[in-house]
Order: sequence, then structure tokens, then C-alpha cells
Amino acid sequence: MKINEVKMNDQLLSGFIDELVNQYRAQDTYGNWDGKKDEELLKDYIVDAQKRKEIPIIGDPDPDVLWRVELFFNAVALTIEKRTGVLIVPMMSMHHEGFGRVILFGGRLVVINKTLRDVHRFGYPTLEKLAEAGAKYASMGIEMISRFPEVARFEG
Amino acid sequence: MKINEVKMNDQLLSGFIDELVNQYRAQDTYGNWDGKKDEELLKDYIVDAQKRKEIPIIGDPDPDVLWRVELFFNAVALTIEKRTGVLIVPMMSMHHEGFGRVILFGGRLVVINKTLRDVHRFGYPTLEKLAEAGAKYASMGIEMISRFPEVARFEG
Repeated sequence: MKINEVKMNDQLLSGFIDELVNQYRAQDTYGNWDGKKDEELLKDYIVDAQKRKEIPIIGDPDPDVLWRVELFFNAVALTIEKRTGVLIVPMMSMHHEGFGRVILFGGRLVVINKTLRDVHRFGYPTLEKLAEAGAKYASMGIEMISRFPEVARFEG
Repeated sequence: MKINEVKMNDQLLSGFIDELVNQYRAQDTYGNWDGKKDEELLKDYIVDAQKRKEIPIIGDPDPDVLWRVELFFNAVALTIEKRTGVLIVPMMSMHHEGFGRVILFGGRLVVINKTLRDVHRFGYPTLEKLAEAGAKYASMGIEMISRFPEVARFEG
């Protein structure tokens, strides 16, 4: 299934961003970010052309970027969960050189299976593109669940 | 599905042990273990009552035991793969305190989903029990594939 074949709606875009912001705020146990706007919280996800040029082509991902990837897919998982009622579990397996795999599954169904490469360069040119990317993954997951509902709701 | 409801056969028991031994021998790039018998290679999987008493109830798993758990499930994956023709990918996610999750999936089907606990105590009382455990997981995986073949062979 190609990402751009999946239809999206504004609700999914804003739903995803809300979940991502929630992920961030949930980490902020001391309230240090209470005064920060959502855009500020998510600013490290924004890697524009200029910023991308400054990142080496090959590099080891630091813990911060791994954490951003993790929160990104957690937010995808929660977006899918809220719209389908299927509990979604994310699992990430990263090689230290910046490639790896993330899967999201619900019941016995793998709803997202994504090979990651160049994780140290993870990011999107604008907040809109970030929202689109998250919403596209969520759409793909929701689509898989509607295709194989019995597997997504399988218990055991 | 309960583990003991799954039927096994001798072929699966020996098939699993063969895969596990192969996993070990494949790591031995310098041939240091060429003279070792299979039972010797697998001896650290054998945790009998006496040995179990000596392991603290709570403990952090060391890299060796994590590696043994990984090879164990790799061997389960290969046993399933050889009997179904479905490529099986294992993913393990471990918390440092010794609990975590291992899943094996093929196509978009999670064929094994296992919560791990007390990983620092991972082992079986005898070689036969080790073989039975591996073969039981393999049976469960094969059973899942025969239940949802379309999902196990889904590409995309």
C-alpha cells in the first residue's frame, strides 16, 4: 500500500498532533514546559532544507532523536487506538548505526511495519508535513484493521 | 490458546533443537566449538531445581542470558519458517529489570506474542523440556499461520 493512496482528513492530522503534544507534556512531570506552546515542544521534529544540510549523511542517532522517533510512533499508535478501539502496541528495534524497524500491532495484526533508515536525520520540513506523516501512518493502520478486523481483535 | 492444547511431534522437537544448535554454531566464526557436542553448547539453557535455587528471585539479566533468549526465539522463528515457508521476523524488547516482550511475526501476522518475566532465570530443567518448550512455541506459530494464512502472506 502506498502512503499517498491513503485518504486523510483534517481530524486525523490534528488528532495526531494532539497525541504527540500529549506524549511530550506527559514526560514533563515538573511542569517546566507549561508555558511552552505546542509548536515549541515539537520544534526538534522540524528539519528544513538548511538544517538537513548541516546533518552528516552518515551518523549514529543520539538518544534524543531515538526518543523523538519513539514518541512519534507512540502518537501514531494512540491515534489509531482512539479511532478503532483496538489497543495498539509499538515495538522499536534499533541498530546503533541508525537503522532498524518499528512495528505497531493490535491483537495479532501488525498494522504498521516500517524499516527505519538514517534515523539521525529523522524530521520533517514543516509542522504540516509532520502532521501529514503521522496521519498517513495512522490511516494505514486504521485501513489494516478494517481489512482484518478478526485478527486485530484476536485474543490469546 | 493454551500451550498444552497444541499437539507436537518428534520432528518438531528435534527440528527446534537443530535450529538452536545451528544458531550457536553460526556464532562460532573461529571454530572454537567444533569439538563440542550439541548438549555442551546448550548446557546454559538447562536450569535444574538446584541451579534455580541459586539464582536470586529478583535480578537484572546479564547480556549472556538475553542472548540465549534471543537465540531461543530465533530458533523458534526458523522452525516455523521451514515448515510454513513464511519468513518470520523476531523482535524483542527488554526492560533492563528483566521483563519485556518478544514477538514473532510473518507478513502482517503476529504468530507469537510473549510477555517475558524473570528473564535472568530463563532456562528449562532438562534438554527434553527445552526442546518441548521450543516446539510448543513453533506449534503455536504454525497454528496461527494456518488460521490466518492471508495475513501471514500479506505483502505491503
